Amino acid sequence: MLKLHRTALTALVLALLLACAQLSLAQPGDPLPSWNDGPNKTAILDFVHKVTREGSPDFVPVPERIATFDNDGTLWAEKPLYFQVFFILDRVKAMAPQHPEWQTREPFASVLKGDLKGAFSGGDQALVALALAAQTGMSTADFAREVQDWIATARHPQTGMLFTEMVYQPMLELLGYLRANGFKTFIVSGGGIEFMRPWTERVYGVPPEQVVGSSFQTQYEMTPDGPVLMRLPKIAFVDDREGKPVGINAHIGRRPVAAFGNSDGDIQMLEWTTVGQKGARLAMLVHHTDAAREYAYDKGTEKALKEATARGWNIVDMKDDWNVIYPSVKK
Amino acid sequence: MLKLHRTALTALVLALLLACAQLSLAQPGDPLPSWNDGPNKTAILDFVHKVTREGSPDFVPVPERIATFDNDGTLWAEKPLYFQVFFILDRVKAMAPQHPEWQTREPFASVLKGDLKGAFSGGDQALVALALAAQTGMSTADFAREVQDWIATARHPQTGMLFTEMVYQPMLELLGYLRANGFKTFIVSGGGIEFMRPWTERVYGVPPEQVVGSSFQTQYEMTPDGPVLMRLPKIAFVDDREGKPVGINAHIGRRPVAAFGNSDGDIQMLEWTTVGQKGARLAMLVHHTDAAREYAYDKGTEKALKEATARGWNIVDMKDDWNVIYPSVKK
Repeated sequence: MLKLHRTALTALVLALLLACAQLSLAQPGDPLPSWNDGPNKTAILDFVHKVTREGSPDFVPVPERIATFDNDGTLWAEKPLYFQVFFILDRVKAMAPQHPEWQTREPFASVLKGDLKGAFSGGDQALVALALAAQTGMSTADFAREVQDWIATARHPQTGMLFTEMVYQPMLELLGYLRANGFKTFIVSGGGIEFMRPWTERVYGVPPEQVVGSSFQTQYEMTPDGPVLMRLPKIAFVDDREGKPVGINAHIGRRPVAAFGNSDGDIQMLEWTTVGQKGARLAMLVHHTDAAREYAYDKGTEKALKEATARGWNIVDMKDDWNVIYPSVKK
Repeated sequence: MLKLHRTALTALVLALLLACAQLSLAQPGDPLPSWNDGPNKTAILDFVHKVTREGSPDFVPVPERIATFDNDGTLWAEKPLYFQVFFILDRVKAMAPQHPEWQTREPFASVLKGDLKGAFSGGDQALVALALAAQTGMSTADFAREVQDWIATARHPQTGMLFTEMVYQPMLELLGYLRANGFKTFIVSGGGIEFMRPWTERVYGVPPEQVVGSSFQTQYEMTPDGPVLMRLPKIAFVDDREGKPVGINAHIGRRPVAAFGNSDGDIQMLEWTTVGQKGARLAMLVHHTDAAREYAYDKGTEKALKEATARGWNIVDMKDDWNVIYPSVKK
């Protein structure tokens, strides 16, 4: 009897330990090894501790643990051009044989001559014309295949790395750490939603349904092979600046408790996450300060940096806070 | 030594049993007790078995197990009017004191006189005018509160039940069964996305980020109390008919492997789920055949029923297939 009791008790204890281990040992040791000790790493760890501790005044139930991340400049690099622009330029070059008229029509003619400065002298309108030509007129399935093929092989003109190798190791750790603590992680980017979705699950662990981005209108059509959604040359939504809270509301329907950005386009998302909200919130800007390992620039981020200081948002100093930048270049 | 081994072994076995129990005993006994035995119940069980069995030619990995559900007439009743229309009418009546001009302006005047036939004689335009007046001009947070207050107390004019009591018990079981088998369940409804989100998690277990619906445009504004999203009197998206695959693509970014609807508005969603797709797919229409316990009607569902027969989609006969309709009226 006693022996049976002991055996059963040991079994129960071990079973409970196993169950606990599945919960608490998801993050053995330091969950953010690529982050140097300092106020920003501490702010992340403190925030997660506060919102996940039952009984804490800042406790947030699991379903409300929403974290949103900008992509360009926050999860991966964005220089010398947004990486999606390289895709657009490569597509225009690949499509040129079917468009002889582009040889004499701007901004296409300049792109085909390799004169980017000339191509972009037309400003936003030139970029929109290139984006429409390169990214609409096909089905969503065909477009996804184009993106997959390109992202698997295209390389950054300065580093020679695959673009997906130029994601930030510290941010990958942060995504994983938040998810291990019950957060749902979303990307909220000014980039194209259908440009990101084919690879965000593999690279960031973020599934398509948790990607919010800019979009073109699509139209349902039945073909002999089944239905398709055709991408129309008409912008449906611009997920930038004031558009980010709009996109967050449309796709998520809850306000985030943590948000991460790097530029003026992220200001409203960080406001929407923190201003006038009760309880602990985390808003963080990645400041590009590392010309040796990545890039150093403030252009396009000045207002965000100013507002971050005024509102007490955290500013990550890449040079000081991160001991690794890219996953493939570990220290 | 031997005793220790035995203890450890017993512990291990029990721990493994516990771990397995958490996985496999999520559905003890019949997972669909409100469904009568028959081809439709069998079709559901067979489909789930096929797509969840590793090594099956129809196996679908967990991240791709997407199931989409229409709401009106599929998850809850929709007669004598879509339930959201009752909300709109109640809002118009509540707002009338602030709008003396409505006393003489149609369709408002007829609504305030209780003459619904007169109010809706203006067709879709009349409904749109009422919907805009009742549902825009406030912040998304204020609108959510209005919905919450209304749904907690408003009652169906014929049954006297709360509207959220008029959800279908067999469909609640189906939602739970699919989720227990690794599916992510989404609502894809022609109804207002922000009309549904305040209560879908509590009633259906579907969180706000898994609700797709029709929407008005919103605009980001900073107030002294913090930022708000104001609901503008401009339709952003109609999530019906051809709009359903568009909405599914915009919000989910994957094609469903199972879809459930009841009317002509669901045809394209069921096509998008099944036509030209490889592997097991489940498409199901709820046919309202039970005048005694719910409603019996074909109007607005004729084309869907016809296409279901042609394409081999399952047609649920409420009267024959369901032994319970509403959760509060168990057999």
